Amino acid sequence: MQTQILERMESEVRTYSRSFPIVFTKAQGARLTAENGREYIDFLAGAGTLNYGHNHPKLQEALVEYITSNGIVHGLDMWTAAKRDYLETLEEVIFKPRGLDYKVHLPGPTGTNAVEAAIRLARVAKGRHNIVTFTNGFHGVTMGALATTGNRKFREATGGIPTQGASFMPFDGYLGEDTDTLDYFEKLLGDKSGGLDVPAGVIVETVQGEGGINPAGLDWLKRLESICRAHDILLIVDDIQAGCGRTGKFFSFEHADIVPDIVTNSKSLSAYGLPFAHVLMRPELDKWKPGQYNGTFRGFNMAFVTAAAALRHFWSDDRFERDVQRKGRIVEERFARIAASLTEMGHPASERGRGLMRGIDVRDGDIADKITSKAFENGLIIETAGQDGQVVKCLCPLVISDEDLLEGLDILERSAREAFA
Amino acid sequence: MQTQILERMESEVRTYSRSFPIVFTKAQGARLTAENGREYIDFLAGAGTLNYGHNHPKLQEALVEYITSNGIVHGLDMWTAAKRDYLETLEEVIFKPRGLDYKVHLPGPTGTNAVEAAIRLARVAKGRHNIVTFTNGFHGVTMGALATTGNRKFREATGGIPTQGASFMPFDGYLGEDTDTLDYFEKLLGDKSGGLDVPAGVIVETVQGEGGINPAGLDWLKRLESICRAHDILLIVDDIQAGCGRTGKFFSFEHADIVPDIVTNSKSLSAYGLPFAHVLMRPELDKWKPGQYNGTFRGFNMAFVTAAAALRHFWSDDRFERDVQRKGRIVEERFARIAASLTEMGHPASERGRGLMRGIDVRDGDIADKITSKAFENGLIIETAGQDGQVVKCLCPLVISDEDLLEGLDILERSAREAFA
Amino acid sequence: MQTQILERMESEVRTYSRSFPIVFTKAQGARLTAENGREYIDFLAGAGTLNYGHNHPKLQEALVEYITSNGIVHGLDMWTAAKRDYLETLEEVIFKPRGLDYKVHLPGPTGTNAVEAAIRLARVAKGRHNIVTFTNGFHGVTMGALATTGNRKFREATGGIPTQGASFMPFDGYLGEDTDTLDYFEKLLGDKSGGLDVPAGVIVETVQGEGGINPAGLDWLKRLESICRAHDILLIVDDIQAGCGRTGKFFSFEHADIVPDIVTNSKSLSAYGLPFAHVLMRPELDKWKPGQYNGTFRGFNMAFVTAAAALRHFWSDDRFERDVQRKGRIVEERFARIAASLTEMGHPASERGRGLMRGIDVRDGDIADKITSKAFENGLIIETAGQDGQVVKCLCPLVISDEDLLEGLDILERSAREAFA
Amino acid sequence: MQTQILERMESEVRTYSRSFPIVFTKAQGARLTAENGREYIDFLAGAGTLNYGHNHPKLQEALVEYITSNGIVHGLDMWTAAKRDYLETLEEVIFKPRGLDYKVHLPGPTGTNAVEAAIRLARVAKGRHNIVTFTNGFHGVTMGALATTGNRKFREATGGIPTQGASFMPFDGYLGEDTDTLDYFEKLLGDKSGGLDVPAGVIVETVQGEGGINPAGLDWLKRLESICRAHDILLIVDDIQAGCGRTGKFFSFEHADIVPDIVTNSKSLSAYGLPFAHVLMRPELDKWKPGQYNGTFRGFNMAFVTAAAALRHFWSDDRFERDVQRKGRIVEERFARIAASLTEMGHPASERGRGLMRGIDVRDGDIADKITSKAFENGLIIETAGQDGQVVKCLCPLVISDEDLLEGLDILERSAREAFA
Repeated sequence: MQTQILERMESEVRTYSRSFPIVFTKAQGARLTAENGREYIDFLAGAGTLNYGHNHPKLQEALVEYITSNGIVHGLDMWTAAKRDYLETLEEVIFKPRGLDYKVHLPGPTGTNAVEAAIRLARVAKGRHNIVTFTNGFHGVTMGALATTGNRKFREATGGIPTQGASFMPFDGYLGEDTDTLDYFEKLLGDKSGGLDVPAGVIVETVQGEGGINPAGLDWLKRLESICRAHDILLIVDDIQAGCGRTGKFFSFEHADIVPDIVTNSKSLSAYGLPFAHVLMRPELDKWKPGQYNGTFRGFNMAFVTAAAALRHFWSDDRFERDVQRKGRIVEERFARIAASLTEMGHPASERGRGLMRGIDVRDGDIADKITSKAFENGLIIETAGQDGQVVKCLCPLVISDEDLLEGLDILERSAREAFA
Repeated sequence: MQTQILERMESEVRTYSRSFPIVFTKAQGARLTAENGREYIDFLAGAGTLNYGHNHPKLQEALVEYITSNGIVHGLDMWTAAKRDYLETLEEVIFKPRGLDYKVHLPGPTGTNAVEAAIRLARVAKGRHNIVTFTNGFHGVTMGALATTGNRKFREATGGIPTQGASFMPFDGYLGEDTDTLDYFEKLLGDKSGGLDVPAGVIVETVQGEGGINPAGLDWLKRLESICRAHDILLIVDDIQAGCGRTGKFFSFEHADIVPDIVTNSKSLSAYGLPFAHVLMRPELDKWKPGQYNGTFRGFNMAFVTAAAALRHFWSDDRFERDVQRKGRIVEERFARIAASLTEMGHPASERGRGLMRGIDVRDGDIADKITSKAFENGLIIETAGQDGQVVKCLCPLVISDEDLLEGLDILERSAREAFA
Repeated sequence: MQTQILERMESEVRTYSRSFPIVFTKAQGARLTAENGREYIDFLAGAGTLNYGHNHPKLQEALVEYITSNGIVHGLDMWTAAKRDYLETLEEVIFKPRGLDYKVHLPGPTGTNAVEAAIRLARVAKGRHNIVTFTNGFHGVTMGALATTGNRKFREATGGIPTQGASFMPFDGYLGEDTDTLDYFEKLLGDKSGGLDVPAGVIVETVQGEGGINPAGLDWLKRLESICRAHDILLIVDDIQAGCGRTGKFFSFEHADIVPDIVTNSKSLSAYGLPFAHVLMRPELDKWKPGQYNGTFRGFNMAFVTAAAALRHFWSDDRFERDVQRKGRIVEERFARIAASLTEMGHPASERGRGLMRGIDVRDGDIADKITSKAFENGLIIETAGQDGQVVKCLCPLVISDEDLLEGLDILERSAREAFA
Repeated sequence: MQTQILERMESEVRTYSRSFPIVFTKAQGARLTAENGREYIDFLAGAGTLNYGHNHPKLQEALVEYITSNGIVHGLDMWTAAKRDYLETLEEVIFKPRGLDYKVHLPGPTGTNAVEAAIRLARVAKGRHNIVTFTNGFHGVTMGALATTGNRKFREATGGIPTQGASFMPFDGYLGEDTDTLDYFEKLLGDKSGGLDVPAGVIVETVQGEGGINPAGLDWLKRLESICRAHDILLIVDDIQAGCGRTGKFFSFEHADIVPDIVTNSKSLSAYGLPFAHVLMRPELDKWKPGQYNGTFRGFNMAFVTAAAALRHFWSDDRFERDVQRKGRIVEERFARIAASLTEMGHPASERGRGLMRGIDVRDGDIADKITSKAFENGLIIETAGQDGQVVKCLCPLVISDEDLLEGLDILERSAREAFA
């Protein structure tokens, strides 16, 4: 396997090829194939981008049909039949059954673009500059989004520009089980001298992904919504990683029975790994003037095609979401078992998550690395999350077969054992 | 043609569907087809994204072959055979013949992402925060890139966050023919009290696109490079719109015989309208630590495939670039004629540009709008640029047939006449 | 009393003349005389600027002697005999007995200037931009200092520039009696993804003045010092209001037995109401290059004269500080009684403070206003503090006679009663 | 002369004591006396703070009378008889004869405080964040003011916080004699894509002081006023150094027959070296809410007393300003002669200035230093200005006797000669 040119020509910024120093060629479903022919079960799935697996045949068919028929691939934000179909499907399959009423902004096709658009819209709509975000939140690394991202690795690599426009609050559970961190937020909102500029919006992940698979309590989310309403603050749910079914519902906030004012989606939104993002907003918030937020690849037509096909295929009834929930319980149970066994071996660990967004917190990044390295040796692609990389996380495709899922879990369990043999 | 759902569901931010309120379905080469069957010649080409036209058969074939063989579509920044092939091809076909030596950073797949990465790298590498940019420059709208973008429409829509980290200098020609605007820049660099923080880098388009098709003089570019070298400032060429052959060379800066320290490409880089971007940097500038700049869609494999195929097909010898230059001269001549005839009709106008990046400056946005509206009626998609939209610009596919090119030019000439009949 | 010209010509920004709409002419000790001949006892004392009372005869004599002998009044930062005498006296009378070793920076003569210099020095010394400050902290209103000031009235009047470079933490007691707010700070410091940029320094008032007379616990301060030491963060005590004996020690931090890295003093530093400020820093922190922080009125010679005289007169032994502590207990007792009686009347209230920096928290700004308005009618100048102005505060001159002190307290007690009769 | 304690205890930030390493004790008129008894003629005069000389007897008398009668020294911004007298005198003596109508804001008593208040007011009044300032402008070093100050020494010592909220334009003459730099400013104002955020205000010194004694042309100032009016931008004249008679008129802008919207004064405003500043604003701009901009030493009563006395004594008729103009011509002539002689000696030099704000530009900071060092040896205190300290500047007291003035000029001329002997 030739890797020299990759090592020589690609910037040192590269990361995943350090954990998995191997060249991949093919992929299907929950399996990746390397150039040497070896197959790996994929519990990373593009960090949540491949909820429907690699190269799903149904979606592949729709995509190839679109391409070969010379469908519009790139049209800036011109109207296309593919865009219309996407919007119609989104409304019919997703919004209507959930009683949602959103307008759709199609910014550049990445998560950070969607976040920049969402927080900027909140600022414009409310005439205030501040955005409240949470400890361990991750919302992207372009300068506007970075202000809301907690990770120092990124925050310290701006080359001397401090971020601005965001204030951090403690996420649910951050101050221990007995403290409702929203008490602090609410107190500050009511305090004319507390140093918190009244925010235009609050941006939150209902389950923090990069931050360590931290699920916010459903009551906490409900109260957050109430606080926002009471103080005329917009609630922005960044559903880029937790959305599109990952937690067992299409939108992760459905569990808490809340309705955000603004929603960002990306990652699995295209359903096929294609760059794609949208921002949903309550219609009355659509304060944009024509062209005030643009980008060359806003509205990527190939993504409209696969996204719409996936909505129709997976979300027309509740079978898919029930299946995801079922698999989530399998992972939960096995992760609890692995955590217990690690604890027994003297490495205290615990399981957490929601749906198929699950992690084992082993308290220590080196321990987590040992487990995932061993897993890779054993044929499983799995990564870590959290401030120290201390959480082994499962983001397997939601469509994974029970067979692959169980095999992956077996490998993980074995790897955890072997790592400390 | 149903457009209600598009009007109802899409955010007011939409723009191109206002100029072309029609639903498009198919496209091939330099032609777009609307739902009602009408064909349009495309002189917009995704604002420079479709240099190789819509659905180029050669690239389509490679793409479909990749998809149907279950090639990796999304792999974060893992190593894939497609990435390796792209890097190898880039080196062989582009870098080596031009004597260039760059490392490649694959950020999120949009231009603004590439610009954020480029200017952040410059800051990190030099330990200074300031970036010099130019009047009428356009480099994207995420907050970091926005600081370097001159357009007020975007700058005023941040919701109360002033941009920071950039200083504007007058672009070539900004102060009239007799003033070399670099005198001002050089004076400020040497002035300890002039208010210009010593910049880490200078970002420049060799031909400003959105700013109004303004080509910088080749001597001016050469001098800019010298100034940067003399003051230890990095020269960043933003070749997102002018690159990939648009000006008649692969990189637009080849005309000036300069070698930037950092280069950004996007738009036509994938060659097929797929979201894709890279940042090129001199190897010694690669100061990134692993993962310091990330993004879910960095390194989009489908784009590697089409990009590499295009490099091989179009750039293995100089036939393509000579053909582009030839067509550029055709457009130049016709634009000059149109400008002359507008001037005669009492609407002073002039032609400018480089290669197939050309515009007619009609001095007034309303006049330009009248011409492009009339052109649309007559079957030609063409847009305007410049601070007041006063420049009718041609960004036709580089692969356009002479027939289509001449037909498009005929339509434009007729439309200009009709607009003021 | 003519006030029309004052109302017409002075900007609407004026404040104290709204609470006390009367023209004052003379002042001596703890008494102010209005133009109509009425005398007022002064429990405001220039918001802590007149610790030694108005026109103290000893200091007046030294000042007049200096002026009439044509001593240097203004010399930028040139060396003068007065400056030398001030520095010698500061070292002999203050530093040596307390075992302190500081270098002295003489910035512009106001508190906000000193704070700007202090936090900038911290940033330069540590090469980090962030400063941690606390809820309800007040450190001045120029843009650098404002970032560390919690009050929204000021923060919202910047005309569209968000402050930058500071992060707020909860002050001692902010989250209730049972929560040590430093737990949160320490957790964030150790959290690579908590959103807290590692600070260069922490700025704190040991007793918050404008924030509502909030004394930090001495253990809390001690722990804050430890945390700073452990994380290589500079501890900056802003002793502008609480210093110069106000709390019963020369420096307010002496109570907690801590040694800040940087200290700011102003207000009563000149001892005579003259604009004056200094920044003290551990010698090894003196990273300034010549002239890197300047200002026309740095080192006001008349203030050197009165400041040195006051140090010699009041601080050469411990009699003065014991007397301040004694009076502090008198105020404490009477404030407790007033608070109890207000509580009985149905207006829950409580006393707090340290030394002669004391307040009655009546929970409600309107109630506090009623009391202070009534007090003014009755011949006592007293003001409120706190985010809602809910704290009636006593900042009487430290040199107040027992007679005046008791009369003032009597008036206040009577006024509190009358306000709710 | 003991200087050890000064060298040991004062921060390295000290500057003037490096040029004049000697301890001063007394001063009267235009003469400073050192501890060793030596007298110096003072051509620095507190960098323009001592327009009326040291310890002017008339003002000294008023000041001592006020102090010994126990006048209010410090009263925050309460009404005092001294404040009222100041405002009345300002109106009668200054505003009325000049047809001016301003309200008066009394911020903290330093120039930078006044500038922070002025630009913040402009932002609040116009609802825009940007302030245009000029190359080589100096407006103070607190963070808000610093954004408008060109000097890198200060700009680079912020410890990693880039300034924000200001854009630099070339000052009059910056681009050579043949270029009207306002062409560039006006072009940018009208350019929707030039990168200049529409400013709330323009801040300008009519004669740049620290920047190198650069007088703006009177036509240029007039045109600047017109541009501001035409674009609804506030014109702020920072008259801190050039005001109070320095240029031969009370306000330096009177020469150009313009009326700024906002004016800042400090330095010589108190007339006695006391810290003092005010901001003047057209009445309709007084958008401040009570207390939105505060400071402990706002409205220093001793300064009201000397300031009012000086206005009455010097400005009740035009004799003083005519005398200043006469002395200005003397300095002009002698400076021209010195410049000519330096030029002859092979050190090209030229004279410039307005009134008694005059400099000799010797092109090179080392040359200027040699001259001023030699002058100090010869008994003359004189300093340099300009980005490289290349301008020897005369800021002698306006009240200087002809005798002292001529002696000072003789010393300077001799020193210039000796420096290159």
